[in-house]
Amino acid sequence: MAGSSIGSAAVVGAGLVGSAWAIVFARAGVTVRAFDASEDIRRTTVVRIRASLEDMAKAGLVDGVDAICSRVTVVDDLRAAVSDVDYVQESVFERVEEKRGVSEAIGALIRDDAVVGSSSSGIPASAFTEHAPRRERFLIAHPVNPPHLVPLVELVPAPWTDPAILPWLRGVMQWVGQAPIVVNREIEGFILNRLQGVLLMEAWALFEDGYASVADIDLCVSQGLGLRWSFMGPFETIDLNAPGGVDDYARRLGPLYHSIAQSRANPRPWSPELIERARSERRAALAQEKLPERSAWRDRRLMALVAHRRSQPSE
Amino acid sequence: MAGSSIGSAAVVGAGLVGSAWAIVFARAGVTVRAFDASEDIRRTTVVRIRASLEDMAKAGLVDGVDAICSRVTVVDDLRAAVSDVDYVQESVFERVEEKRGVSEAIGALIRDDAVVGSSSSGIPASAFTEHAPRRERFLIAHPVNPPHLVPLVELVPAPWTDPAILPWLRGVMQWVGQAPIVVNREIEGFILNRLQGVLLMEAWALFEDGYASVADIDLCVSQGLGLRWSFMGPFETIDLNAPGGVDDYARRLGPLYHSIAQSRANPRPWSPELIERARSERRAALAQEKLPERSAWRDRRLMALVAHRRSQPSE
Repeated sequence: MAGSSIGSAAVVGAGLVGSAWAIVFARAGVTVRAFDASEDIRRTTVVRIRASLEDMAKAGLVDGVDAICSRVTVVDDLRAAVSDVDYVQESVFERVEEKRGVSEAIGALIRDDAVVGSSSSGIPASAFTEHAPRRERFLIAHPVNPPHLVPLVELVPAPWTDPAILPWLRGVMQWVGQAPIVVNREIEGFILNRLQGVLLMEAWALFEDGYASVADIDLCVSQGLGLRWSFMGPFETIDLNAPGGVDDYARRLGPLYHSIAQSRANPRPWSPELIERARSERRAALAQEKLPERSAWRDRRLMALVAHRRSQPSE
Repeated sequence: MAGSSIGSAAVVGAGLVGSAWAIVFARAGVTVRAFDASEDIRRTTVVRIRASLEDMAKAGLVDGVDAICSRVTVVDDLRAAVSDVDYVQESVFERVEEKRGVSEAIGALIRDDAVVGSSSSGIPASAFTEHAPRRERFLIAHPVNPPHLVPLVELVPAPWTDPAILPWLRGVMQWVGQAPIVVNREIEGFILNRLQGVLLMEAWALFEDGYASVADIDLCVSQGLGLRWSFMGPFETIDLNAPGGVDDYARRLGPLYHSIAQSRANPRPWSPELIERARSERRAALAQEKLPERSAWRDRRLMALVAHRRSQPSE
């Protein structure tokens, strides 16, 4: 654990998220061992990684697809994957029993100085690492999907995580090209899904009450709020939105936002009828069978956006 | 009011927002008359418009700066600005008395078939047009700052707005290159600031409770959530984020988001101490005197992003 770089990493769970992590590590020069309990997934891992890398090469995001692929080895047991690596990224199915089982198995096999990050998007590490061997080496390293295109990673320790791991893993994640943040202690939804969640709750409530269509609420973000948020966070946005900075803005607009929040003090769950109305509007805009095609469009747009961001002078 | 295009527009209030609106209309070929009650602002309007257009030309966003500027005439009384135009965009200082006074003056001067949109970001039209002559011709047309770069416009009718104006103005705004949405009836904060507000309230609460720094919460958006939101809204994002679409996603994750919302059922105002903590962190990252320079950086990034978005194949 000297310095914030790693020579080897294991990817445990090699589906969509795990194979994207393999790309993240391999493109940074790290030797990757990938394991999945499913033989079907193991057999297709390298093909899927190569296809993603070729798409990225077309978008100008990587060179040397062959060299990157050559750093990834798929292995057929967990021990071969994790027993001698510096870092393990666990991305198995998000169910607490599954996370618990694999964490206990990993903890028994790793080196004393290895670190294990879980891709869990909602279950905190304390819920599945309590009885794992070397539990102080485990924490959450929650990516945004897909991590080879969206850099954010939330690092969230369990109460027993060795505090020295946080600055180290933050450094490693930066070194491989991700954008890590530290969530100081566990909270439901961590930070990313809480921020997404409150915006979604308001969007659904406005739709439910007939203020606007799903399509118009979407435009409000994709043609409005989302432009600045693609290169600045919400605090910097408001810091630049009042002559005196963030405190000037907060004094002027804090009361409005507090009043809006009070109007939602009794949040409503999304009812089956409401979900059906949203479904019906979305399916009129995009047929069910076109979802995969549109997801491929989203990935191309993301790749083009990442290339655009890289073209901008560093700040 | 035949067809969704206009030949002439007046801009009333020619500060930052008003002069950006002059650019929006003039670049679409519309003849613009600009008026501001301040002689200082009137004297600098054309210079400021030209400087913005030259920046945009450098970013590849407009051609023919001279031709666009030649369509804008600054006039020195309100009557000359509004008496014979198809559309009036009012952008005076956001105080209800000021909005009321200018709306009553405009209503007395316009043609019967003209339409008046107010740039008001929070005060609803019913609060200042009730006693205006031709009050059925008034509504909110709230832009994002600056409207010549960020296309969203919220159209919000007062209870007495002629309903035929909404589809017409939506068409006009699309024709000049903006992205209008219709908010079916008045609500505090309209839609854009409600969505921004709920995300800000959560961000401030997480910061207050010590979960993360201002800088890390900002990264959560600028390196995570904001990437997809710069080309897709929140509903489309979740529609593509579960195999079965939006309803599948809502059934899986609705309970988590409802639970997060319930944890904020008692929203706290931003206290002076909290504002001071955020100010102190932002000012350590960016000195007060660097705010204007950083705002210029934001505008360059926005221009580059707009150019990037235009380069993408249409959907």
